This record gives sequence, structure tokens and C-alpha cells, in this order.
Amino acid sequence: MNYSSKLIEEAVQAFATLPSIGKKTALRLVLHLVKMEPELTERLGEALLNMRKHIQFCQNCHHLSDGPQCQICADPRRDRSLVCVVEGIRDVMAIEETGQYKGLYHVLGGVISPLEGVGPESLQVDSLVNRVDSGEVKELIMAVSPTIEGETTIFYLSKQLSAYPVRISTIARGVSFGGELEYADELTLARSITARIPYKSE
Amino acid sequence: MNYSSKLIEEAVQAFATLPSIGKKTALRLVLHLVKMEPELTERLGEALLNMRKHIQFCQNCHHLSDGPQCQICADPRRDRSLVCVVEGIRDVMAIEETGQYKGLYHVLGGVISPLEGVGPESLQVDSLVNRVDSGEVKELIMAVSPTIEGETTIFYLSKQLSAYPVRISTIARGVSFGGELEYADELTLARSITARIPYKSE
Repeated sequence: MNYSSKLIEEAVQAFATLPSIGKKTALRLVLHLVKMEPELTERLGEALLNMRKHIQFCQNCHHLSDGPQCQICADPRRDRSLVCVVEGIRDVMAIEETGQYKGLYHVLGGVISPLEGVGPESLQVDSLVNRVDSGEVKELIMAVSPTIEGETTIFYLSKQLSAYPVRISTIARGVSFGGELEYADELTLARSITARIPYKSE
Repeated sequence: MNYSSKLIEEAVQAFATLPSIGKKTALRLVLHLVKMEPELTERLGEALLNMRKHIQFCQNCHHLSDGPQCQICADPRRDRSLVCVVEGIRDVMAIEETGQYKGLYHVLGGVISPLEGVGPESLQVDSLVNRVDSGEVKELIMAVSPTIEGETTIFYLSKQLSAYPVRISTIARGVSFGGELEYADELTLARSITARIPYKSE
């Protein structure tokens, strides 16, 4: 594409490095910014530069953070005896969005996957053991993907932590709310019958 | 959404002001930037700020330009007697992409549309008349949208320029290459028959 402007070309190419944004979409976005008032571009450009320069990972749970400790770990109202172990940052955001969880988190940074070359040493396992070792944590909730890799990771962590008096649980798995039984996959359906729970009227 | 980081939140909100980018996509883009090396974000942020600060419109044809005159107008190999009149910047890029056109352009900035409050005074009409008045232009090719508004604009321009010895043409309209006749709309099909052209074997 001939943009007949170096400035436009560089902006388009920088945008097009982002996932799911091709050259055509990038051009549309850049022309939108040209059409709008300059403050909009300044806000975007500076927010990105500022974000990338100052963003940190929480020393405690490895979640994204504006300072050495994230807002969740710094919140005195959260239950410090309960830690939810997740794969990534987006899982923390998804669980926070439910508004139902009042404990802390621990972001592993992935799951053990020998096929992709991810071993326990590339994950935040040691710092999890240290957190448990400090004695404050009473229960770990394993909220990783229900895959072979996820199960392997839970198994590995439970072995590493077997010496500590910490309760390990996993999030409930079963048929989704609003889902129809006939469309649930066989494994989920079979497990949801094996792991049936007593009925309580609310 | 609770991002538990002001830096992330501001970057997401700035991204989400762009067309077709919602909060979820914006978050995905921001987390991608966090994951990649900082240089990528710096390149994007600085390309955008630099582009918006220095981009200009060509004094001659009103196309986007890095300086007072755009690359096309500044190119001595272009035919200065031929001017293609288009609605917007993207039309110039689309025609340039064909590689078939060797004249100059004139970007109107839209078409006359009383319903949307766009009159001739909001378009670059006066500067087109001035260009024709300078005597260098021999032919104007009207390459505006084949709509009522586009036709109105061509009619208006031809009236404004009736005193000048300039040839006015419109781009050919008809059935697209590779298109199937049965899917062409009635108006296009009817016009393509009325405006039929003698067959030349190449």
C-alpha cells in the first residue's frame, strides 16, 4: 500500500503489529485519529507509553500492578488465608468481575506443558511455596484450565505442598448455567454426574 | 470491569475510543503490549504522537502530507494537466494502489449532502476552481461515489466550472470485473447497458 506519507505509514505499521489488526484496519484507525481532535491521539499515545513504562508485577501475587504491591494484595478487607491460584492476569480479572471472591490470588504465568517447553521452573511455583511456608495461607483454590496441562500442574503443586498443612481445592466443574445438557461434552457430563452435589433449596 | 490498575485502565479506555474496538479487544491489545518487549509499545505510542503532531494537508490537493505539499503533487513525473476529484483520502490511496493513474488529485472532503448539513462551502470547492483558473488543468475526472449526493456534487462542480475550458469526465460505471450479472443491482445493470461500449479485441 502506498500511503504517500511516512508519518501515516509508520503509524499504520506500528498498529498492524497488534494481534487481529491488519494493515487495512490499522489504516482505518490511523485515519480516524487524523480526523478527530489531536487530544484523542495524545491521550492514547501517552496512556500507552505511560502504562508500559510504569506497569509492574505485584511482588506477592504477580498480578499487574501500579506499584510493588497490587491493589488486591494491598486491600486490608481481603481474606489473606485464602489464595486462588490462576494461570494468568485475565483469569484474575474474570474472577474479580464476579464480585464473589474475597481472598487473594497467585498468578502462575501459565501451566506445566512439556510439549510447549513450559516446566515448573518457568512458572511462579517457588514464590507460591514461600507464601504457603509463611504460614498465613490456609487454603489454595486451584482455578486453572480443565485440561491435561492444568491437571498436571495441580498435581505437581499438590506434591510440592504436601509437607504443609494447607487445604487444596479445585473450582467446581460441571454443566454451565443456562447450558443445555445435550450440548455438554461427554467428559463434562460424566464428571458432573460423578461429582453430583446434595440438593439444597435456597 | 475491574482492572485493579489505573495504568491498564487508562490504556484500555484510550484504545476503546477507537472505532470497532470495544473494552474486551482493548484489554487484549493492552495485555499483548505488556507481554511483549517495551520497544513495541514505545514504537506505537511515539509513531501515533509523531504522526498526529506533524501530519498536514497538502496545500494543493488537500491529501495527507508530511509537508506543505504532498508526495504526489511534488512528483515531477505526474501529469499536472489531469486532476482526479475524490471525496476522501482513502479514495486517493485506493486509486494510487491501482498504479494506473498518473495525474494529480483533488480531495473534496466529502460530497454535497443537504440531509447531513454538508453544503458546497464545507468542501474544497473554491480551491478546485482556483486550480482550474490557474490554467494548468485540462481535464477533471470526477471519481465520487455513484450516489444521489455524488451526482449532485458533480452537477454543482460542473456548473461552477462552466466558464472554464476544462474537460469534465466521470469514472466508468458498470458491472464489476468477476461479478455475476444476476447479482448486480437493477440500476447498475440498466446503466451498464445504456452506456455500453464498442467491443475491442486486445
